[in-house]
Amino acid sequence: MRILLILNAVFLLASTTAAQRQRELNLMPMPSSVQLGTGQLPIDQFFSVAVTGFQEATLERGVQRFVAELSQQTGMLFKHKPADASPTLSIHADHGREPVQKLGEDESYELAITDSGAKLTAPTPLGILHGLQTLLQLVETTPAGFAVPAVTVKDKPRFPWRGLLIDVGRHFIPLDVLKRNVDGMAAVKLNVLHLHLSDDQGFRVESKRFPRLHEMGSDGMYYTQGELRDFVAYAHDRGVRVLPEFDTPGHSRSWFVGYPELASNPGPYKVDPEGPDSVTDPTQEGTYKFLEKFVDEMAKLFPDDYFHIGGDEVDGKYWDANPKIQAFIHSHGMKNNQDLQAYFNQRLQKILTKHHRLMVGWDEILHPDLPKTIVIHSWRGQESLATAAKQGYSSLLSFGYYIDLMWPAARHYAVDPMSGAAATLSPEEKSRILGGEACMWTEWVTPEILDSRVWPRTAAIAERLWSPQEVTDVGSMYARLAELNWRLDWLGLTHRTGRFQMLHRMSGTEDISALRTVADVVEPVKDYARISNVKGPWDFRAPLNHLIDAVSPESDPARHFRDQVQAYIQSSYKDQAAEAQIRALLTTWRDNDMKLYPLLQRSSLLLEVTPLSQDLSALGAAGLQALDYLDKSEPGPESWRAQQLALIERARTPRADLLLSVVAPVQQLIEASAGQTQK
Amino acid sequence: MRILLILNAVFLLASTTAAQRQRELNLMPMPSSVQLGTGQLPIDQFFSVAVTGFQEATLERGVQRFVAELSQQTGMLFKHKPADASPTLSIHADHGREPVQKLGEDESYELAITDSGAKLTAPTPLGILHGLQTLLQLVETTPAGFAVPAVTVKDKPRFPWRGLLIDVGRHFIPLDVLKRNVDGMAAVKLNVLHLHLSDDQGFRVESKRFPRLHEMGSDGMYYTQGELRDFVAYAHDRGVRVLPEFDTPGHSRSWFVGYPELASNPGPYKVDPEGPDSVTDPTQEGTYKFLEKFVDEMAKLFPDDYFHIGGDEVDGKYWDANPKIQAFIHSHGMKNNQDLQAYFNQRLQKILTKHHRLMVGWDEILHPDLPKTIVIHSWRGQESLATAAKQGYSSLLSFGYYIDLMWPAARHYAVDPMSGAAATLSPEEKSRILGGEACMWTEWVTPEILDSRVWPRTAAIAERLWSPQEVTDVGSMYARLAELNWRLDWLGLTHRTGRFQMLHRMSGTEDISALRTVADVVEPVKDYARISNVKGPWDFRAPLNHLIDAVSPESDPARHFRDQVQAYIQSSYKDQAAEAQIRALLTTWRDNDMKLYPLLQRSSLLLEVTPLSQDLSALGAAGLQALDYLDKSEPGPESWRAQQLALIERARTPRADLLLSVVAPVQQLIEASAGQTQK
Repeated sequence: MRILLILNAVFLLASTTAAQRQRELNLMPMPSSVQLGTGQLPIDQFFSVAVTGFQEATLERGVQRFVAELSQQTGMLFKHKPADASPTLSIHADHGREPVQKLGEDESYELAITDSGAKLTAPTPLGILHGLQTLLQLVETTPAGFAVPAVTVKDKPRFPWRGLLIDVGRHFIPLDVLKRNVDGMAAVKLNVLHLHLSDDQGFRVESKRFPRLHEMGSDGMYYTQGELRDFVAYAHDRGVRVLPEFDTPGHSRSWFVGYPELASNPGPYKVDPEGPDSVTDPTQEGTYKFLEKFVDEMAKLFPDDYFHIGGDEVDGKYWDANPKIQAFIHSHGMKNNQDLQAYFNQRLQKILTKHHRLMVGWDEILHPDLPKTIVIHSWRGQESLATAAKQGYSSLLSFGYYIDLMWPAARHYAVDPMSGAAATLSPEEKSRILGGEACMWTEWVTPEILDSRVWPRTAAIAERLWSPQEVTDVGSMYARLAELNWRLDWLGLTHRTGRFQMLHRMSGTEDISALRTVADVVEPVKDYARISNVKGPWDFRAPLNHLIDAVSPESDPARHFRDQVQAYIQSSYKDQAAEAQIRALLTTWRDNDMKLYPLLQRSSLLLEVTPLSQDLSALGAAGLQALDYLDKSEPGPESWRAQQLALIERARTPRADLLLSVVAPVQQLIEASAGQTQK
Repeated sequence: MRILLILNAVFLLASTTAAQRQRELNLMPMPSSVQLGTGQLPIDQFFSVAVTGFQEATLERGVQRFVAELSQQTGMLFKHKPADASPTLSIHADHGREPVQKLGEDESYELAITDSGAKLTAPTPLGILHGLQTLLQLVETTPAGFAVPAVTVKDKPRFPWRGLLIDVGRHFIPLDVLKRNVDGMAAVKLNVLHLHLSDDQGFRVESKRFPRLHEMGSDGMYYTQGELRDFVAYAHDRGVRVLPEFDTPGHSRSWFVGYPELASNPGPYKVDPEGPDSVTDPTQEGTYKFLEKFVDEMAKLFPDDYFHIGGDEVDGKYWDANPKIQAFIHSHGMKNNQDLQAYFNQRLQKILTKHHRLMVGWDEILHPDLPKTIVIHSWRGQESLATAAKQGYSSLLSFGYYIDLMWPAARHYAVDPMSGAAATLSPEEKSRILGGEACMWTEWVTPEILDSRVWPRTAAIAERLWSPQEVTDVGSMYARLAELNWRLDWLGLTHRTGRFQMLHRMSGTEDISALRTVADVVEPVKDYARISNVKGPWDFRAPLNHLIDAVSPESDPARHFRDQVQAYIQSSYKDQAAEAQIRALLTTWRDNDMKLYPLLQRSSLLLEVTPLSQDLSALGAAGLQALDYLDKSEPGPESWRAQQLALIERARTPRADLLLSVVAPVQQLIEASAGQTQK
């Protein structure tokens, strides 16, 4: 489903400058209600917590983690308070959580902070966990020491299903990486980790019933059952459900390596993309006997009420090629392959029901023959949410939340599950839209790359799904995202630090400053451009150690530069502070290629960066010349302009699957210098 | 022993510029023999290893780790080679290692690399482990991809005992932090991790015989016996012995909290420094009964042949104050407290012998009544190595290797165990000098700080202990240290990245660039200046979250700046490239305080940095003015110079326990500008 999608979304940036905003707390997601009080509550070495009301182990562990994180964030060990002193923070939950977290379980909380203490109350420990995250985000550095501002927060989620999908099929993602990402999810109040556990390239769960699934269907990298039980408990402790997905009947080549009898065509199969491919054969009873035992085993590992069966991108040609399958279709009065897939889904749905699981599947499983209990997971377009809701089905949005497509955070942020066709639904229909999931497909993601693809952009999606619909200020979002970003470091996430190791690897030396100058202002090509550029079959074991793998999906320095150019132009070229900063950057770029060139020539991984580096320097020079013309209030000569615009054309072209993300603002400067005559 | 020492070492910098050096491989420690060949061996996705000769589990795991690290360093997954292809690397060990690593076990290896393959041979797997580390350091980035140069390395250590002490008593250091440091040790061929397991402030090992040791003698942070067994095996796998130290009869308050009957004076005792203190009572038979059972238990946990009993800084006043102890001294014909400690050590030594352990202790245990099997660990001065060797004792050097004193790497590097009085020893006496240990005392070190204190400076000490004595070129050492430094990131060490989180914590915001400018050029005060500045009793639980805790012990940017000023002055002010770089830095500093000031005023942790930031800007301005005078070949006016030298005086003063490490080169520029008249 990752490849066929063509996107035509139009993206409008709604921005507010920092100056326009009131004092805003660095909370993300923004709570439903925040009332600032006066004063602040100091956080010192005598910080203490008391838990009254309902007590349970996950709550206790949650409080312990909170204290450890607070200690880490402040660099303070907490000492014991005198016994008679009142606690800094008192916590009260009314009753317990479900032993297996349910969809729609109460997650609300209230946090009341005065200068003498903080009080966190919630119906269940789930709300307490969320409130503790809010409290951690409130910790500030002040002239009087660490403190949280006096504030009253009343908070609850807009949608009950707020997820992150991680594809562990294409590239195996070890549990320690998953765990730190669960910590990140908890920090931004996401509550569903959707594990895409099998795909053509790998089957990642130990099966004792069908051991050839993980033994032959993977490169030896899979989760043992013991590890998965621990991991599900780890996520539960943090208020995160684990939703398993085993994609079928398509995206299933890894199943067929060990069990070719499940396939619609003769094998043998390999996980390697160069051999034959197929999809599951829905016409054989053996398939259902297999699935029955398989679901029985997997349901014991994954206690969640929901079970994702995939169901996307079933390539009909494999069914077309098998006369027995075609005969089955005709003898059962089906019209086409879609009907056959619906038949398969119905059979599978009955197996899931027997094991007390509700079916979730991608868009393609929507079919009137299926019961209303299934959940439609939209990936091909947002309108299917409304279509499903009108037909009585629950649904989830992931179209617009594909974080592998390298969009800026603002573009994901602008996608609302209730917009478009969904906006006109009745309240009852709207209630069927459960939320959404950010999707981290890993065709181009290894464990060392993952964090930088997920964070911080996923936090913008988390806010969309948690906060009130009217929270849409992009400037505010980016400001708060930046502050969240460095705090996520405390969780061990490598989204900010990992790239430096990769740059060192590429350059093979200590001084990577000139390479960083380029890396800072390039972005990976968007959408599916990278895979479109692959010649021949995609080798999922090809090294992901190029510059594209090390740079951020979205360049913050480029965004700041765009903003500065904007401010400078809007000031009618009078904003001298902006001009100075623009000049400083342009000068750095202009002079950078000369510094970087020797390094580029020394490394096979960096040779491809050469034209980008040259163009960045040329852009720097062009921008500086444009500023000179603007300073002199004289238009740049026509010939000069024509030359610069040719540079702009060239610099716009992706090279090494990278985009120079400062082309547009430099172009603006050049064009502005032409407009000087009107001044 | 950390506080009483006063250092008067004179430090001479022997430097070679990069241009003077031949192509030098980035190996650290430098092998005893390196012969460059021609060509290179490519490291591609078909890299493979074959092990012939002796096979054992630690060797197999070592090879697996090597392949995983190579994969990480190159960002490549390795694919299977055609079966008939010859392996890229073949490994051959003649025989096995000792199940418990012995002092002096053969660690030598030979590594022969041609353009068609690499061959690593060694008498035992220990040498193979070292050779694999050398191979990892040889991996280069080339225009043709990753490769190792054709080279023949023949290598063996100069000293058999190459250690790192980590004090886990003052601040508990969790096992994951210890483990990544063991990985770092293995990378630079250190082979002894000396764990200082107990001190006044904490007893860190679970004792089943005497549970009040860890229960009452710590803040709840200690290693369980199971954890320690795993850890010792982890270190053994990496060729690292674990040497336990339980400091006695001094530095033992944590023992007395649960077992006050061991102390020389009535308690009760607390680990807290504000209560009464004492040392062990050597006159009671109960003490030896306790130690007998204690050693029996600990010897089962720590299989190493050696057992460190501490023995340093025994404060005699506690024995003086107890009339029964004084009576014991007289009735046994002892002259003084030193004799009493020797008596104690003799008794303890017999207990250790019974459990097949050799005694190691600090300087103070040297006493003619002790047998020659004991090892003297020198911390008070280097001459005790020679004294001990002449008397027939083996010895270890740590004087000069105290990495908590914040010395530059070059100063540690200049300390050689065979220099000074040792230089004139006979060969037999010299052979008693076993090596040395870097010492990481943790009065001012928490787990998040540790890596930055240990690395990379410890690698310079590792080279001193491994490489031939004549390897002393400081310029080469720093160049290779810089290249090693970023490679240590791959082991998960946080010596480079950890400080950024701490700077964010202090400033409470995303943009820490101006703070980094200051942090880059300040260094912690040296030797024991920090603890000398503490008013009242030292609170070992005070937060270590100040700028001093985040900055490097040695400023690399300051060193580079000094070198540039040196080059500029030596060129008679003609080196324009150096001048341009000097100007750029001075300008950054001059303009920085204005940017940083608002941040400093916002944070209680940064207020103390204000005068440093102001002085750095003043130094920047002064340096620029000096350059202007030099450019114009006119001397700076006398009044200007007097003013600048007053600034220099002030800037030299430590503030916030930090030193501005660029004062001297700016002073040189100012003084140079005065000398213009002679030109």
